[in-house]
Amino acid sequence: MTTSRTTTPGAVVNVGADLLADAVADQAVPVARVDWRPPMPGTEDDLATVAADPLRRTANERALAAVLDVTATLVDVAPAAEVLGLERGEFLHAGPPIGWDRASGPLRGALMGGAALEGLVDDPEDAVALFESDAGVSLEPCHHRSTVGPMAGVVTPSMWMFVLEDAATGRRTYCSLNEGLGKVLRYGAYSPEVLTRLTWMNRVLGPLLQRAVRALQDSGQGAVDVTGILTQMLQMGDEAHNRNRAGTLMLLRDLAPAMVRSGFASEDVAEALGFVGGNDHFFLNLAMPACKLALDAARGTDGSTMVVAMARNGTDFGIQVAGTGDEWFTGPAQLADGLFLGDYGPEDANPDIGDSAITETAGIGGFAMATAPAIVRFVGGSVPDALATTRRMHEITLGENPRWSVPVLEFQGTPTGIDVSRVCRTGILPQINTGMAGRVAGVGQVGAGLVTPPAEIFPQALARLAALAAARTPA
Amino acid sequence: MTTSRTTTPGAVVNVGADLLADAVADQAVPVARVDWRPPMPGTEDDLATVAADPLRRTANERALAAVLDVTATLVDVAPAAEVLGLERGEFLHAGPPIGWDRASGPLRGALMGGAALEGLVDDPEDAVALFESDAGVSLEPCHHRSTVGPMAGVVTPSMWMFVLEDAATGRRTYCSLNEGLGKVLRYGAYSPEVLTRLTWMNRVLGPLLQRAVRALQDSGQGAVDVTGILTQMLQMGDEAHNRNRAGTLMLLRDLAPAMVRSGFASEDVAEALGFVGGNDHFFLNLAMPACKLALDAARGTDGSTMVVAMARNGTDFGIQVAGTGDEWFTGPAQLADGLFLGDYGPEDANPDIGDSAITETAGIGGFAMATAPAIVRFVGGSVPDALATTRRMHEITLGENPRWSVPVLEFQGTPTGIDVSRVCRTGILPQINTGMAGRVAGVGQVGAGLVTPPAEIFPQALARLAALAAARTPA
Repeated sequence: MTTSRTTTPGAVVNVGADLLADAVADQAVPVARVDWRPPMPGTEDDLATVAADPLRRTANERALAAVLDVTATLVDVAPAAEVLGLERGEFLHAGPPIGWDRASGPLRGALMGGAALEGLVDDPEDAVALFESDAGVSLEPCHHRSTVGPMAGVVTPSMWMFVLEDAATGRRTYCSLNEGLGKVLRYGAYSPEVLTRLTWMNRVLGPLLQRAVRALQDSGQGAVDVTGILTQMLQMGDEAHNRNRAGTLMLLRDLAPAMVRSGFASEDVAEALGFVGGNDHFFLNLAMPACKLALDAARGTDGSTMVVAMARNGTDFGIQVAGTGDEWFTGPAQLADGLFLGDYGPEDANPDIGDSAITETAGIGGFAMATAPAIVRFVGGSVPDALATTRRMHEITLGENPRWSVPVLEFQGTPTGIDVSRVCRTGILPQINTGMAGRVAGVGQVGAGLVTPPAEIFPQALARLAALAAARTPA
Repeated sequence: MTTSRTTTPGAVVNVGADLLADAVADQAVPVARVDWRPPMPGTEDDLATVAADPLRRTANERALAAVLDVTATLVDVAPAAEVLGLERGEFLHAGPPIGWDRASGPLRGALMGGAALEGLVDDPEDAVALFESDAGVSLEPCHHRSTVGPMAGVVTPSMWMFVLEDAATGRRTYCSLNEGLGKVLRYGAYSPEVLTRLTWMNRVLGPLLQRAVRALQDSGQGAVDVTGILTQMLQMGDEAHNRNRAGTLMLLRDLAPAMVRSGFASEDVAEALGFVGGNDHFFLNLAMPACKLALDAARGTDGSTMVVAMARNGTDFGIQVAGTGDEWFTGPAQLADGLFLGDYGPEDANPDIGDSAITETAGIGGFAMATAPAIVRFVGGSVPDALATTRRMHEITLGENPRWSVPVLEFQGTPTGIDVSRVCRTGILPQINTGMAGRVAGVGQVGAGLVTPPAEIFPQALARLAALAAARTPA
């Protein structure tokens, strides 16, 4: 939201090896450059049409206000078959629509593991023929079922889902339970340990969490306030995409007494507490549906240029925009730039995958890098980069979220509501923190890093917004 | 550790309403001023004598290295009677030695409540006569028993203590269990609810934690790594004095499975989990003895000018120094400057009290303000103040703790090892984050804020260091 005109200081004296010099080098100068950056090539006419759209300003104000009004509460945990009506052979996946033929390695791996989990095949390898034949199986984006899924995002009927609700409207969104790190289905792994863990989650963890969450609901003590935890964790070094440690701990704090009182065997309760506490990413699967719950409030706002979803299936990166209904604007998913686990390198990584960019769409994740400077040791970059990233994202967003404030930026709200017009006008692309899956099915995670959408999807969306605006205008 | 010479920038252009301008205003200029600040009046000769002490440099290097080498592990939880040999009628208190006659309201209130807890009196009010008569009761500083206590710091024989151990040496330190906020003994409250809670802690919480900690020790899984949690929490918005939220949550994560497996009744376990999880300060009582464990490693280092304890009894503020044995240098405790709860104001506050300044002595708390900018909403001040405070403390410390790094300062270690010489030479006083107790016995907490030691205790300590150095030098 920097609107003041600036000039580049001619000389600044560096005091110590510290933030000041870097602030000048990494923040001030790029911000100055931004003002001079040309729009994306070929977007000038559409930018003018959209800027002149009489609906635009109020539509964007309404869209942003709708997003900021939503509060997400964890109200239930239940199987996908029950809460999504998902039937045998139906598979949800991350990102925009895709078939097996174009699916990337990690998505194929997750589908193969999911088929085995559901008993459609005994050996995950046998699922290849099943998906190739297309007999009795179907693929559908999570987003089409009010759901989001990290990485491959595969959801099958037996998987237990977090159920989040907006108190004011009763609208709900869903996400599966997080499996942890390493060899996990969402990164495309499907070895026996992966399936054993998923079976335990279906048999013990899901039912135990259901009993605890329902007991909290019934006790009058209230269910888990996911939006409130997000507010707190953003002041505790989490950006709620690649770092969810404080969020996970607060969830554990809120659920532990009810888990102990659930009547489940002590050993099951202790194992579940250890599983959740041992997985710093557990809360990601609550942060994501909370963000979707907020953003879905703005869907279908005619004239609004605000992005309501960014999602990747490992092949395509897609966005949806408030003013263009449920249409996807897609381009090739990019490779992340970051740090690799063990001996893995860039050649091992699959292009960007997962619905988790819903966090950036809602103003956290990469957009809140400034609040999580410790994350640079996980995704790469430097602390001044982290501060500069959040500042840069304010250039392409409609406003700030006062609930989600960044202490080190003097409690400024996180940049919220990606504006297709601003992206096209500045050429600044949204910054996404992401995990990297191995490109070969079965490998699992190979690293974590930073990535952006393919630039061309924003001019695509802008063109559609311009066409709709033109169609509304009396000739 | 800023050693480069600086000049004040003639003009810096402000880019946005942000950190840069404040960094210049609040950080660069004060740092520049520091270089020109005169020593404390009357200290010139002692500064020269101590500077010429041939032991000084290596003594300080050894003292700092000893502190940094210590790692603290929670190895047991047990009653003070057992682990400290505390007997009926013996009371420990925070700060340097003091008697009932000079004791402040909150210390008196805590002693009165402690006497009732131990059954020495039925009504806490009756304890006034007991302490005035001095019959069968005695007061001793926590520090004299390898113990630290927050605020009034009163420890009685029946209270359960955390037992921390340095793995390399087997040395141990101790601290009572944290009671929570509001009406609590350590703030001088002694109403029935205070005593009821303390009784429950003695009857349920202590024994349950003992069983969990001992089980972790025996399992080979290891006990709780307090130093490791401190490392993590300093990257999660805690400065480990007035903000211990992340630390408390990590402790809960580490203990919860063992608590569930303890064999205690589910309702007791659930209540204990709720009690710990509902008290963001619970971890303070582990942070403090971890700091004492580290600092005690440097006690008795001849020639070292490093402070090994700062502690307040509500009347006097005392320090101990590595090179001067167990002698206390004392002056009047100051009133904190900060924010008040409810309708309380400065006239309700007692002067500074508690052993908790052991955290600043070890390089966290007020010294790590930069890592916990959110705390300014609790203790007052601004985010740039928080960054500037940590930078300023580097001016009076011997080094940095590489284990405890501050992400936003590009992972610089916290300023560690307060040097009496540097304090006297610069006039910069250690910055302490503190809670404020009501000055009337029984009131409890009235606020939180920032405070410094009385300046005169540093020249006192310097004079003794100079006398010792002179005595060592052949005439």
